[in-house]
Amino acid sequence: MGKPAKHKRKRKRYSLPVAGSSPGVVYIDEHALQPLIRFHSYNDHYYAVKELDNIENLSRILANQEFNYWIEIKGFGSAAMFDTLNNDFGISKLVLEDITRTYQRPKLEEYGKYDFAISRMLHFDENKNLDNEQVSFILMENALFTFQEGYEDCLEPIRTRLNAGKGNIRIAGSSYLMYALMDIIIDTYFEILGSWGDELDLIEDRLFDKPDKTVMFDTQLVKRNLINVRRVVWPERDKLNDMLRSDSRLITDQTKMFIRDAYDHCIQIIDIVESLKEISASNIDMYLSIISNRMNEIMKVLTIISSIFIPLTFIAGIYGMNFAIQDPVTGKVMPQNMPELYQEHGYLYTVIVMGAIALLQILYFWRKGWFK
Amino acid sequence: MGKPAKHKRKRKRYSLPVAGSSPGVVYIDEHALQPLIRFHSYNDHYYAVKELDNIENLSRILANQEFNYWIEIKGFGSAAMFDTLNNDFGISKLVLEDITRTYQRPKLEEYGKYDFAISRMLHFDENKNLDNEQVSFILMENALFTFQEGYEDCLEPIRTRLNAGKGNIRIAGSSYLMYALMDIIIDTYFEILGSWGDELDLIEDRLFDKPDKTVMFDTQLVKRNLINVRRVVWPERDKLNDMLRSDSRLITDQTKMFIRDAYDHCIQIIDIVESLKEISASNIDMYLSIISNRMNEIMKVLTIISSIFIPLTFIAGIYGMNFAIQDPVTGKVMPQNMPELYQEHGYLYTVIVMGAIALLQILYFWRKGWFK
Amino acid sequence: MGKPAKHKRKRKRYSLPVAGSSPGVVYIDEHALQPLIRFHSYNDHYYAVKELDNIENLSRILANQEFNYWIEIKGFGSAAMFDTLNNDFGISKLVLEDITRTYQRPKLEEYGKYDFAISRMLHFDENKNLDNEQVSFILMENALFTFQEGYEDCLEPIRTRLNAGKGNIRIAGSSYLMYALMDIIIDTYFEILGSWGDELDLIEDRLFDKPDKTVMFDTQLVKRNLINVRRVVWPERDKLNDMLRSDSRLITDQTKMFIRDAYDHCIQIIDIVESLKEISASNIDMYLSIISNRMNEIMKVLTIISSIFIPLTFIAGIYGMNFAIQDPVTGKVMPQNMPELYQEHGYLYTVIVMGAIALLQILYFWRKGWFK
Amino acid sequence: MGKPAKHKRKRKRYSLPVAGSSPGVVYIDEHALQPLIRFHSYNDHYYAVKELDNIENLSRILANQEFNYWIEIKGFGSAAMFDTLNNDFGISKLVLEDITRTYQRPKLEEYGKYDFAISRMLHFDENKNLDNEQVSFILMENALFTFQEGYEDCLEPIRTRLNAGKGNIRIAGSSYLMYALMDIIIDTYFEILGSWGDELDLIEDRLFDKPDKTVMFDTQLVKRNLINVRRVVWPERDKLNDMLRSDSRLITDQTKMFIRDAYDHCIQIIDIVESLKEISASNIDMYLSIISNRMNEIMKVLTIISSIFIPLTFIAGIYGMNFAIQDPVTGKVMPQNMPELYQEHGYLYTVIVMGAIALLQILYFWRKGWFK
Amino acid sequence: MGKPAKHKRKRKRYSLPVAGSSPGVVYIDEHALQPLIRFHSYNDHYYAVKELDNIENLSRILANQEFNYWIEIKGFGSAAMFDTLNNDFGISKLVLEDITRTYQRPKLEEYGKYDFAISRMLHFDENKNLDNEQVSFILMENALFTFQEGYEDCLEPIRTRLNAGKGNIRIAGSSYLMYALMDIIIDTYFEILGSWGDELDLIEDRLFDKPDKTVMFDTQLVKRNLINVRRVVWPERDKLNDMLRSDSRLITDQTKMFIRDAYDHCIQIIDIVESLKEISASNIDMYLSIISNRMNEIMKVLTIISSIFIPLTFIAGIYGMNFAIQDPVTGKVMPQNMPELYQEHGYLYTVIVMGAIALLQILYFWRKGWFK
Repeated sequence: MGKPAKHKRKRKRYSLPVAGSSPGVVYIDEHALQPLIRFHSYNDHYYAVKELDNIENLSRILANQEFNYWIEIKGFGSAAMFDTLNNDFGISKLVLEDITRTYQRPKLEEYGKYDFAISRMLHFDENKNLDNEQVSFILMENALFTFQEGYEDCLEPIRTRLNAGKGNIRIAGSSYLMYALMDIIIDTYFEILGSWGDELDLIEDRLFDKPDKTVMFDTQLVKRNLINVRRVVWPERDKLNDMLRSDSRLITDQTKMFIRDAYDHCIQIIDIVESLKEISASNIDMYLSIISNRMNEIMKVLTIISSIFIPLTFIAGIYGMNFAIQDPVTGKVMPQNMPELYQEHGYLYTVIVMGAIALLQILYFWRKGWFK
Repeated sequence: MGKPAKHKRKRKRYSLPVAGSSPGVVYIDEHALQPLIRFHSYNDHYYAVKELDNIENLSRILANQEFNYWIEIKGFGSAAMFDTLNNDFGISKLVLEDITRTYQRPKLEEYGKYDFAISRMLHFDENKNLDNEQVSFILMENALFTFQEGYEDCLEPIRTRLNAGKGNIRIAGSSYLMYALMDIIIDTYFEILGSWGDELDLIEDRLFDKPDKTVMFDTQLVKRNLINVRRVVWPERDKLNDMLRSDSRLITDQTKMFIRDAYDHCIQIIDIVESLKEISASNIDMYLSIISNRMNEIMKVLTIISSIFIPLTFIAGIYGMNFAIQDPVTGKVMPQNMPELYQEHGYLYTVIVMGAIALLQILYFWRKGWFK
Repeated sequence: MGKPAKHKRKRKRYSLPVAGSSPGVVYIDEHALQPLIRFHSYNDHYYAVKELDNIENLSRILANQEFNYWIEIKGFGSAAMFDTLNNDFGISKLVLEDITRTYQRPKLEEYGKYDFAISRMLHFDENKNLDNEQVSFILMENALFTFQEGYEDCLEPIRTRLNAGKGNIRIAGSSYLMYALMDIIIDTYFEILGSWGDELDLIEDRLFDKPDKTVMFDTQLVKRNLINVRRVVWPERDKLNDMLRSDSRLITDQTKMFIRDAYDHCIQIIDIVESLKEISASNIDMYLSIISNRMNEIMKVLTIISSIFIPLTFIAGIYGMNFAIQDPVTGKVMPQNMPELYQEHGYLYTVIVMGAIALLQILYFWRKGWFK
Repeated sequence: MGKPAKHKRKRKRYSLPVAGSSPGVVYIDEHALQPLIRFHSYNDHYYAVKELDNIENLSRILANQEFNYWIEIKGFGSAAMFDTLNNDFGISKLVLEDITRTYQRPKLEEYGKYDFAISRMLHFDENKNLDNEQVSFILMENALFTFQEGYEDCLEPIRTRLNAGKGNIRIAGSSYLMYALMDIIIDTYFEILGSWGDELDLIEDRLFDKPDKTVMFDTQLVKRNLINVRRVVWPERDKLNDMLRSDSRLITDQTKMFIRDAYDHCIQIIDIVESLKEISASNIDMYLSIISNRMNEIMKVLTIISSIFIPLTFIAGIYGMNFAIQDPVTGKVMPQNMPELYQEHGYLYTVIVMGAIALLQILYFWRKGWFK
Repeated sequence: MGKPAKHKRKRKRYSLPVAGSSPGVVYIDEHALQPLIRFHSYNDHYYAVKELDNIENLSRILANQEFNYWIEIKGFGSAAMFDTLNNDFGISKLVLEDITRTYQRPKLEEYGKYDFAISRMLHFDENKNLDNEQVSFILMENALFTFQEGYEDCLEPIRTRLNAGKGNIRIAGSSYLMYALMDIIIDTYFEILGSWGDELDLIEDRLFDKPDKTVMFDTQLVKRNLINVRRVVWPERDKLNDMLRSDSRLITDQTKMFIRDAYDHCIQIIDIVESLKEISASNIDMYLSIISNRMNEIMKVLTIISSIFIPLTFIAGIYGMNFAIQDPVTGKVMPQNMPELYQEHGYLYTVIVMGAIALLQILYFWRKGWFK
């Protein structure tokens, strides 16, 4: 199989529906990656994986009920592959459209012969922005197809467990494998939420230590990410609930017991998301009150200094006036004009008065509690 | 058929009920446009469209079950037409009133012989304001009537698909055509929401780069539009849900499968609307905190400069006072009056003291972190 | 019948229950108006209305099933009338209490022989304050009693339609008349909400043009009115829903079809109320951000002017100091005391330095974007 | 019976559960009042009341089915009494615990032989703080026990009606008496809410006339009280609803008709509480906007005066500088040093320039709308 | 049994799931404490407790139905113990995983042979931070296992009651013991909430007396703790509700009567949490309005003093100008240059004018109400 080109491509976050297109049409973007198909066959005491070029002959292989199969498909750049899925496996065109239009919410749809489910995988792109990618599942009797648009994922631990053969994973059938994949996707939510919880704690520390405007930006960023996670988690919960109550024979009772566990996790995630949102809001409140307080501090400094010195400057200004006691031209004497200036100790008295005014004001501000 | 005059008319956004009017009365505004009737007849291998002057003889044509029919009616300016609908097709007067009073919420009503449904089409008027127009559907066995108040719409792609004959559109019956029309209307919501999402992103960029008061106005505008969209989308969702659970034989099971898809879209739209509303709110919070921060900046500048220079000016004022050491008239000498002025280096000392005060203050503000 | 005195009276908005009074007691206020009784009898081809002094002999008249009757009672100032209602018509005392204690929420109560319903009529009192008045309905086989505390109402169009005999009103029975009255009451809500919508638009225009504090007061007034309307509309909706699902034989199926229409209107009103509330909130947010912005503007002006001139004034103050280079008494020369003052071009240099400082500051503020 | 001491005691508002105590244990506080037992026996044509010392022989008296009994118990200071209730009347210890631990929410519990209900009575303590006291009811076939912790209550009107024998109260059985007591308790809520409504109106008036910070404190006080009332009213509503739907034979159908009335009142109270909360919030919003506006006013005054006079003072400062045109020591003439000072009309020109600057600024502020 | 080392250890608050781990695997942290096993056996007239080293032979002892057993296990540092639980007692691995991964929400799971429940115990760690610890219950026919990660707990009163043998605790079976333990855990919530209520009251007092920024921090701390408590209480309520409606034969009807009591407590806690949250929010609102008010006060002081003295200083500055009436060099006389300076009483008039200006301004501010 030819590995597809590794060039970086700018993917649009959601490929939203285009008004006017027919429903039930597979959507292949011009940037779609060449499919990378990994074929796992396994049972209790056997495990093999190989990479396929196409899925042409797969339906015959799958007829062998001795094994369970996991067909991982990454990249949607082959219309022929989707035709095969439609023709050989009887997958509805509406399902195939949902797989390729990767803006679906998590959901479960039962089609009798197969179940169709969607999970959304959270991860951070190269710019540390939260992105979420669609993982689609088609669950059959002894086979599970998974579909991802890109090549990277967080499912490696499952492949490792499948290879190692520990636990239930090789013996509990395809629905357990689907559960295990969904569960690991949900578990990454915990990691991401945990990191945001830590970040909010750090932001809170900064609020106490040296709050600046990055506090606001960072909190808002976390909050916006939380909004996006919530959009994903609520339908995820509904999906898991649907799986719990599903009548589909494809999902075994044993698997349902585990799904209940995943459902509990999902509820916990919702709890954490809501708590973190409240903590974000509380951080923002704190920050705004800190800004207000700081403004108060600034204004206090200004007001104390201005209030003390402006009146004093006025007094100094008074005695800086040039009212004359003798007209320089006519020589007329006007002894009432600023007699203070010509009094012994006039300067001393003035300075004393100024000091008293300043002291009174300081006392006033002190009693108002402005120096605390 | 005579094309109606193209003159621009000012339409009122909602023709609200007028207290006291009898129910079940068709409402024809004096500005109502002349009806423009387009009659499509089609089946698997046939398609024709023609414009009609009236719908007088239509009921006989529709009796031919070999074809499906789509009767597009735009403009309500003919009372006769509504009489024909009432008399020839047995459409209830209450339904006809709902068609002509174009302020209805999306809904589905089943009348046995026909189903009546309403969608609301979002578009921007010439002033870039969000407007929404009512599209009414009357679904019969092999015919679909659609009613619009104005001439413009977003349904062209359906006409194209009908003409091209690709996909299900010509073979899946009238209920599928109704679904296709509703679906395309919903899809335009995505476009509009997408453009607002982009606008909110741009606004957010402006928040970081150069926030000014237009940020507030623009965000509020988006928010108000979102409020309006939400008023339309929630009943739309209910309508689609009603269609999914409808017992009406007029809506086929195959169509319902597609309606489920439209229903999913509707839920996604609600999701997006709620997220965008939260993002708007978060932008407004950000903006307000930025204003507060900027105020802090402004006040810091004022306070630093005032606090430094006002005391210095006071000192300068002191030595600008004219206390005399010798009375110009009597010649009396008062050596205690401002002896500093007559001291060698008095000026130098004063300047040094002023510099020291300024430095101490700068240091104080520095340690308070005001220069950051 | 003697018309009651027309003197203006101050009515209390809600006659709230008085703790300790027995239940089931008709409440007649000392300000209660003399009853004004209008008796309409009508059928398909007959209509007559006359004013009655009392309802003593009414029960015998109503036994005539050929006609439908509408007994309008306005003003509760007659205990005898309520006794007659209790004795002759078998109306429960609890119902009569609810009629006279006019603070009830809209509701429907079925008593087998009759149905009891309450609507609330919105109107503006002489001071342009929103008031709402209770209209009580007692629906019987072929008669409808309506009760209002005051003389004014908005039901005139129904009387006109009854008189004109157009539409269903004379042929569809008493339940239709009740519907028609309720519907017209609801329709006035639209008018009032429409006027508030217009007012909010005007307020928004003022926000852009010249926002002042009346914006806040006016918006709050609208908001408070909306709170009051919501208190009325929600139970109104429940009442209409109860009527739709009622098993009472007094409400005909035909009427229910119309009630569904009224129910739709009610939902629309709730929609509009919620939207207007959100628009109010958004106006208030806008206003607060405008105040903050304006504060920023004000502070910028203050800061720019103060920051430029305070340092300059300080420099001027420096050279206004009177440090002497020659002691006037001893004649001692101190050439270091303010030598700048005695330097050629000293003044010019000082002015140049001042200009440079001012320019630097203007440049600083310019680059901070304060002049935008 | 010895009346208990009347000394004022400090009661704790809620006697919250103490961790580790056994359930089903009667809780008697050391401050518990001596029981004050009032025994009413009544039927259609008889009424007697007497005060009892204890309830030892009561069970035998109650066996007489000719009368209905109301046993009012106030004060819980007797363990023996509760033992009697447990032994003679078979009241569960859990019920007795709930009676004595007076922090219960309103509820109804049915125990077959008796029904147990709790209401909460609102009143203001001596410091005008809202307090609420538990009233417990034990409803039996022909007897009603009521329990209150303190001696004061709002039930006097019921005693009066019982004595007077008017209305249903003496003939409709014990469940009607319980209803009447509950109803009067609910009716006091109206009074209290009405007084807060009036207070909010007064606060709103003060907002228009002279808003000061007491507005905030008073509004918050009302709001907090509303929060407390809501905590009581919601479970009250649930309790009344439980009573309406109760299968207990102890609550008669006739009583249920009246309970429906009380239930309606309860809904109205919830309505009013929610409205008042919204009005409080709106008052607070108004107040905050008024503060902001006032700040704007203050800053405008400061900015106008500072902006006008600071530049003028600077100019005056300029011409207050002492640059000399002749060195007093050397006699050197420097005619460029402040030639303005020695120009004819220099002073006049300066004053004109100052006036012009002031006028320009006033014009600028005028056009900015700062004088409005 | 060897007591484990008492060294302080830093525990992570939640051991969140690690993505990729197999489900159903017991999780033993490297810091896990050595198990401390306390074995209580009791019946109506017998009680003994001893400490065990392991639970190897326990299953045989438990077969003796004459006694009830409580096996307290604290510390999870023994994988062997969990193997025994799985092998000897048939406890599901998923349950054991939930016990050891101590981040579970309160829940009830029924497994037929045993019931599994989780409570969360609130306590404060050494730094006065709210922490909550998981207590897991496995309820069997005549035995109750409890599991705690740490050694400290709040369950001592139960041990005391068990030892004392008072009340139901020794006779009502294992489900009653489980109830009693859960109940005491819930009761500690009341204590903690009570302390926060007191703290909020203290904060409110500080708001009135001397509000500073610690008010904000302290309120936010309480609020955040409330958010955490709410995350615990809601699922606790659901768990108790599940227990009430459980069909499990392990929970007796008598116990359910008590659980209803605990359920009531839980509802009360939710009530209190919500009220305290509203009070926190109201405190924060108050605080913000106080800051704003204080800012107004500060600005008033600044504005009054500046507005009065800046114009006066300007006037003083005017007469401090040195416009000469005689050119010192040329001797030219310019009598229009500042004639005021050479006028008799010029100084007096100036001072009078200054006083008048100051008075007018004081009057102006007085009438604006700025001195209140």
